[in-house]
Amino acid sequence: MHKGLFITLEGIDGTGKTTQALLLKDYLEGKGHDVCHTFEPGGTQLGSQIRTLLLNPEHSELHAMTEILLYAADRAQHVYETVRPHLEAGGTVICERYTDSSLAYQGYGLGLDIEGIRQINHWATGGLLPDVTIYFDAEPAESLQKTKGDRIEQRTLEYYARVRQGFLTMAQAEPGRIKVISAKGTRAEVASRVLEALEGRF
Amino acid sequence: MHKGLFITLEGIDGTGKTTQALLLKDYLEGKGHDVCHTFEPGGTQLGSQIRTLLLNPEHSELHAMTEILLYAADRAQHVYETVRPHLEAGGTVICERYTDSSLAYQGYGLGLDIEGIRQINHWATGGLLPDVTIYFDAEPAESLQKTKGDRIEQRTLEYYARVRQGFLTMAQAEPGRIKVISAKGTRAEVASRVLEALEGRF
Repeated sequence: MHKGLFITLEGIDGTGKTTQALLLKDYLEGKGHDVCHTFEPGGTQLGSQIRTLLLNPEHSELHAMTEILLYAADRAQHVYETVRPHLEAGGTVICERYTDSSLAYQGYGLGLDIEGIRQINHWATGGLLPDVTIYFDAEPAESLQKTKGDRIEQRTLEYYARVRQGFLTMAQAEPGRIKVISAKGTRAEVASRVLEALEGRF
Repeated sequence: MHKGLFITLEGIDGTGKTTQALLLKDYLEGKGHDVCHTFEPGGTQLGSQIRTLLLNPEHSELHAMTEILLYAADRAQHVYETVRPHLEAGGTVICERYTDSSLAYQGYGLGLDIEGIRQINHWATGGLLPDVTIYFDAEPAESLQKTKGDRIEQRTLEYYARVRQGFLTMAQAEPGRIKVISAKGTRAEVASRVLEALEGRF
């Protein structure tokens, strides 16, 4: 399908995806790879406006179905404008969040139609799947403290527990693609787990 | 499914959908019906922001797939926030444009995956179909003159010819739901065709 390598990083907020993406980019560029580091939602100019719609706290009336379709619209634009051209040119794409996030957050987290979300995203991306996905696993209570301070409510933690379980369930179903690593420890420790998970991919 | 009546008005720009929607609303309210007149895209507060993204001429990079998904997101929000609650309360909804517009403009007009567009919109709307659809048929060259003056290019006319053919093809496939009427003539002449097409629905 494409000549490059498509790596996605998944995990709840506060698990160090951005830090590890940057470390991995540096490492691979040092080896001579052409690397594009990008993210969802909001990885394109249009997408950043969709992201604004999605994350605006005034939009409390935003329906779950609308949310799923806006994420898919952002993803479609990102794939066609950024990800696919880079892969077709033979580059490596490191993307924070992709379809697995929609499945984990909206599907498993909110209890919505998982197969429907999968189909819509399959259609939105023209069937583009990551070659390898690294899932940064952590206790939600611990990683969310880093981003949200003390404002973690019980409901939120239960929600994030379902999201985490969703990621783990998907990893179990696709062990060849989704590699689970612990998000605990120093940057260097996690970075070495990332490289281990990518062994044999280059 | 619902107690009310869901009427959609379809047709290219300049065929008089808004005028006829208002006349029909007046007529039905005179008969004691509870009528909601609405439209797509942009029928909700959130939808008006999606509409802005869709119609902004600066967004020339907007991919066709993104366009379809943004229209579907607008539609999902509109159905859940406006259309369905009104129908469930037993009211009549008169909606300018619905899924048939996506099929005609993006499917037939741009030559994109019609079955995919149908499935995404089925999913986005929870399977809500109009009880009756009135398609205002006209020569694109004539009706577009009313909205676009002399700036009609050949390409545009060819595109609109495909859109028109798409509406007619769908009407042929679903004669029970989609009623084709001519958009030619005075307001009153077209209004009487609209009522004729709706005969037996109330």
